[in-house]
Amino acid sequence: MPFTAEQLADDIRSQNHARSRRALAKAITLVESSRSADVEIAQHLLTAILPATGASQRIGITGIPGVGKSTFIEAFGVMLLRKGYKVAVLAIDPSSERTGGSILGDKTRMPELSRAENAFIRPSPAGKTLGGVARRTRETMLLCEAAGFDVVLVETVGVGQSETALSSMVDFFLVLMLSGTGDELQGMKRGIMELADAIAINKVEAENRMNAERAAQQLRNALHLGMPKYEDWSVPVQLCSAREQTGLEEVWAIMQEFLQNNAERTQHLRRTQAVRWMRETVQDGIAMLLQHSPALRELNTQLEAQVFAQTLSPSAAAMRLLKAMGVAEKM
Amino acid sequence: MPFTAEQLADDIRSQNHARSRRALAKAITLVESSRSADVEIAQHLLTAILPATGASQRIGITGIPGVGKSTFIEAFGVMLLRKGYKVAVLAIDPSSERTGGSILGDKTRMPELSRAENAFIRPSPAGKTLGGVARRTRETMLLCEAAGFDVVLVETVGVGQSETALSSMVDFFLVLMLSGTGDELQGMKRGIMELADAIAINKVEAENRMNAERAAQQLRNALHLGMPKYEDWSVPVQLCSAREQTGLEEVWAIMQEFLQNNAERTQHLRRTQAVRWMRETVQDGIAMLLQHSPALRELNTQLEAQVFAQTLSPSAAAMRLLKAMGVAEKM
Repeated sequence: MPFTAEQLADDIRSQNHARSRRALAKAITLVESSRSADVEIAQHLLTAILPATGASQRIGITGIPGVGKSTFIEAFGVMLLRKGYKVAVLAIDPSSERTGGSILGDKTRMPELSRAENAFIRPSPAGKTLGGVARRTRETMLLCEAAGFDVVLVETVGVGQSETALSSMVDFFLVLMLSGTGDELQGMKRGIMELADAIAINKVEAENRMNAERAAQQLRNALHLGMPKYEDWSVPVQLCSAREQTGLEEVWAIMQEFLQNNAERTQHLRRTQAVRWMRETVQDGIAMLLQHSPALRELNTQLEAQVFAQTLSPSAAAMRLLKAMGVAEKM
Repeated sequence: MPFTAEQLADDIRSQNHARSRRALAKAITLVESSRSADVEIAQHLLTAILPATGASQRIGITGIPGVGKSTFIEAFGVMLLRKGYKVAVLAIDPSSERTGGSILGDKTRMPELSRAENAFIRPSPAGKTLGGVARRTRETMLLCEAAGFDVVLVETVGVGQSETALSSMVDFFLVLMLSGTGDELQGMKRGIMELADAIAINKVEAENRMNAERAAQQLRNALHLGMPKYEDWSVPVQLCSAREQTGLEEVWAIMQEFLQNNAERTQHLRRTQAVRWMRETVQDGIAMLLQHSPALRELNTQLEAQVFAQTLSPSAAAMRLLKAMGVAEKM
């Protein structure tokens, strides 16, 4: 049946649980669509729900494969449900298209959460560009806030780029790590220390606690070497075990301290993030143009090949592309 | 007098030192100009000299103010001159416009280099966007290569962004640091460890050598925690004193080992860099369009203000901007 953005916006905010969920699912499908008609409606929808957004705590979670992200999110999310929060779990996974099905597609990853009335799990949108995937996840996050979710957990598989995209859409960025055999940390990704607001070393059980403590101390020293992300916040390193459900309350307490001690910081962060989203969406639009216009895509491919072969200068190639896009003559 | 890009390209490659220098200066002014007529010629010029580029060693140098960049580059450059190399010194300083005059404007910073026949020092181009400044520096680097310079040293003041831009245009990225009182390192910038191919701790004289050694060891441990930039290269930490001219030969030896042990790596790096330059130049072109078209600039300012005030959704704002740029309808 036909519907307007305004109707959909109302339904999303409805107190009727079933109606709200149906509308939310419909709205997400809409923002994930690339059909220009849908894009139109999606824009109106996002503007319509804008006043109802912003009330949730936006928390990003990343870590290398094997760190136990699913188990952590399941245990952490269930803990939040018990505290009375409504929890949405989203993902940014640019590879989801290749790997066929998102990292969150499989309900068995988070059995209890996926059955819970007050939890909502959404797989990563598919997309050719990270920018496009990130934009859809951001917009889904806004829709979830309009639908009344108090905490939005966004996970990423953590190829470097997607972590940066994730950190630019959340209030708090948690990095999960493992302490290896011996006391070295495993899989610390380049640049990751710069993004983290807190680091949780997962899978710390009795038998490896001492090694984990050493690893944590070593990590604190390394963090001390770097320039702080915020002047008034030094990044905590917390040990936990999602499996044994230890350290999770402490991780939550760290997040609450961060978010409540400096609300202006979060407010300012969100506003600057919003401006960055706009700029990224503009650039994503340019990328879409290069994808969707066969002529431009072909030209772009040719030019990049020549530049790679060093037979054409990068700026000359760029100028030709801008001309073909109809941008150059306006300059 | 009138001239063509081809004439200028020939003169730059001329064996006649005076002519080559005049042509180089003229060419740089051309690539730094934003007059559309100049931009046209500059594009032809860059394409004309392309075959004569790529023969130099491209070395990026950064470090916090006070680390002794000028003294280091002066001493390091003079050492290279003595080895018989022709040395060009460029800079990326997006703030040069604000601060009035570039970080390299003052000849007293590098007295011996600035007098030397086989050295060429060029201040940072001015520019509103880092992208624009970086592009002009890249193109100046190519012109210097065509003019027969063997080593191009590019320095940056090192606000995080400009260091990333610098690292994406050089073969080797050197980070200068200081060991403080006690054994901690001072002013390690966020993300800097991820960019460095080598770290030189400067101002290490007899009296602080032991602290510096401790700091270096601490730093090696921290580097060990991170993921390597290249599988086959672990980032060396070298002590030096530009003032006492110690450790400089060692730094040069490190660069030569890096560049000669794996020439394919550098070749591949340069090709992928070139493609990235093209993409950045396209985005810079979009930014230029927003700057130069009063109507678009005005619209962009309004939209960003509304997005910042959270009265307009980022994607709706982006869509309006793309429409106004004439890009959206092509999608």
